[in-house]
Amino acid sequence: MVQTKGLEGVVATTSSVSSIIDDVLTYRGYNVDDLTDSAQFEEVIYLLWFNKLPTSQQLAEFKSELIENVYLPIELLNIIEKLSKENTHPMSILMNCVSALAIYDEETNQMSEGANYRKSLRLQGKLASIVAAYSRIREGKQPLIPKEDLSFAGNILYMLNGEIPDKISEKAFNKALILHADHELNASTFTARVCVATLSDMYSGITAALGALKGPLHGGANESVMKMLAEINDITQVDSYLHKAFENKEKIMGFGHRVYKTGDPRAKHLREMSRQLAKVTGEEKWYYMSLAIEKIVTNEKGLLPNVDFYSASVYHSLGIQHDLFTPIFAISRVSGWIAHILEQYENNRLIRPRAEYVGLKNQTFIPIQERDESMDVIA
Amino acid sequence: MVQTKGLEGVVATTSSVSSIIDDVLTYRGYNVDDLTDSAQFEEVIYLLWFNKLPTSQQLAEFKSELIENVYLPIELLNIIEKLSKENTHPMSILMNCVSALAIYDEETNQMSEGANYRKSLRLQGKLASIVAAYSRIREGKQPLIPKEDLSFAGNILYMLNGEIPDKISEKAFNKALILHADHELNASTFTARVCVATLSDMYSGITAALGALKGPLHGGANESVMKMLAEINDITQVDSYLHKAFENKEKIMGFGHRVYKTGDPRAKHLREMSRQLAKVTGEEKWYYMSLAIEKIVTNEKGLLPNVDFYSASVYHSLGIQHDLFTPIFAISRVSGWIAHILEQYENNRLIRPRAEYVGLKNQTFIPIQERDESMDVIA
Repeated sequence: MVQTKGLEGVVATTSSVSSIIDDVLTYRGYNVDDLTDSAQFEEVIYLLWFNKLPTSQQLAEFKSELIENVYLPIELLNIIEKLSKENTHPMSILMNCVSALAIYDEETNQMSEGANYRKSLRLQGKLASIVAAYSRIREGKQPLIPKEDLSFAGNILYMLNGEIPDKISEKAFNKALILHADHELNASTFTARVCVATLSDMYSGITAALGALKGPLHGGANESVMKMLAEINDITQVDSYLHKAFENKEKIMGFGHRVYKTGDPRAKHLREMSRQLAKVTGEEKWYYMSLAIEKIVTNEKGLLPNVDFYSASVYHSLGIQHDLFTPIFAISRVSGWIAHILEQYENNRLIRPRAEYVGLKNQTFIPIQERDESMDVIA
Repeated sequence: MVQTKGLEGVVATTSSVSSIIDDVLTYRGYNVDDLTDSAQFEEVIYLLWFNKLPTSQQLAEFKSELIENVYLPIELLNIIEKLSKENTHPMSILMNCVSALAIYDEETNQMSEGANYRKSLRLQGKLASIVAAYSRIREGKQPLIPKEDLSFAGNILYMLNGEIPDKISEKAFNKALILHADHELNASTFTARVCVATLSDMYSGITAALGALKGPLHGGANESVMKMLAEINDITQVDSYLHKAFENKEKIMGFGHRVYKTGDPRAKHLREMSRQLAKVTGEEKWYYMSLAIEKIVTNEKGLLPNVDFYSASVYHSLGIQHDLFTPIFAISRVSGWIAHILEQYENNRLIRPRAEYVGLKNQTFIPIQERDESMDVIA
């Protein structure tokens, strides 16, 4: 019997990547609050993959390995060039590009630890540059190559916007990347693990995860929040917009979470970034509108904001185009997907549950000729 | 706590698509033995999607809709042309092509019943022609367009091999397609359902499923069986090959199944086809070698052949290139994936289980500068 729909509360695997216990999120045992306050995103990737924080020297080496892997093969730039003319969902383009990387990587089907590590670096590095290159090319601009003296967060903003970001923006984006890096068995991570538990390759697993993240119930949520903010557009309209939505029983995106009972610990960091960035950009309305929405939804519906709610105004303030919010989420979450895929390989078993059959039983097959005749009689 | 690794025996959802009860496999309540003996693959697709067998007229309409959707957009033919020069896994190419279809389909993100039905037809039709076109183009031949008077099975063989198939081959391939069409919550189907439960689109779900099917523990198994047959190559070598493999604790592919306890009901049909096709081709050694392997593995290891074991010699006898075995599996299984995706959409809930955290706890974050100093002290 199906105990809980959507496997809610069902423990599907053991994991030592991240934990959500008593509404505290940790990566490898470190409270994500501390990592967000004090770490660089590259340190967090290292932590997720190696189960320990790096020393300065290890971090320097890791950063340089990472930056070497940001460059895209020419075949991929050609693909992005061609696809940038299509009016399509950027997540579909990202999926297409990652599945193309599989074709151009000679190590795709090599399963050694070394090969999987090199593929991890390639995926982590190239996902970011695919999104940045696509964003530039579709605006008729040249894709940029990363600057060696910028952080990973800084480079992504630079490659997207063509300008070295100010310190507050770089720091905020670094925090946002850390907050989105991993989240236990979320739907895209679980998709990746189910996929590679057949011993399929990492590119397949990441492509599958991107497919899941594309869905509006998962990564698509922050874009939906921004759509709502843009629709409301003025703080005086928040109240009437929400009450109309409540009346129509519409779901307000960015609120509530299946796992957290007393609130998503990531929301407070993003709220604070949203506040700070509003000052940097001078466009404070998104932050104040978000605050007003939070207040009403929490008071009247008892729902608390999740990671997606304030990401919307944060990403907007960072100059990121709205349809790239989910790909930007992917640039970060791929670090967690990779950690989970490596963990799955280490101690693999095919993930193959059962379904409870609730359909018709004991149907008698009638050959098509007789089938028609019997139907004529009934008719 | 994780009750069973790989979700073995855990009921993840209800479903009315197919059932495996007491080792009997049914599609929509019809015993697959009966469907394999008497139905056309197109009838089975219809059955899986509409939960009823078609009348002659419904079947004729459905076949004509299906054939209209076999044609590939020129953009895709160009992609296949380019990729055919790469030395890569055909499943990676298939994933790339399906993710490209998402980009060229204007209805990708339309979730209405009508749009999803049209996408179902496109996916079912085009997967077959992608595999056939790739197979032709990489041999320097022109891709072929389907013949309206051939069955779906006949057309695939025709588009692959360039010749109208003989009746025994067409019939055998029709049966093979039926036998591979669906299999409850197998790993690729489960991957597709987890992916689209975020309300992601069908192309994402099918791309994710292809990623899972690519794995050697899933769709890759029949190709591994063929590799083994080719390696043994002579019936006198079966005994020594297997005993050496047993000694080295190597897994013999194509045997055993997590769900079936008294044997996979699909194996007998494929064994009989393998026998018949051996007579057609005159190359009987693959069949006899397979028989000999089955006997030894069953007697000495107590394992029974599954669907993959005799598919190998069947597909080989049908003239299918060995590295296309898994893509051919996909051409059939996509019918089941689609049925499951439609069922998931109908009564959706995000599939998001939990992990049991077994990693380090309560780690104290030490800023990178102090971290290095403390490590120096320890060193």
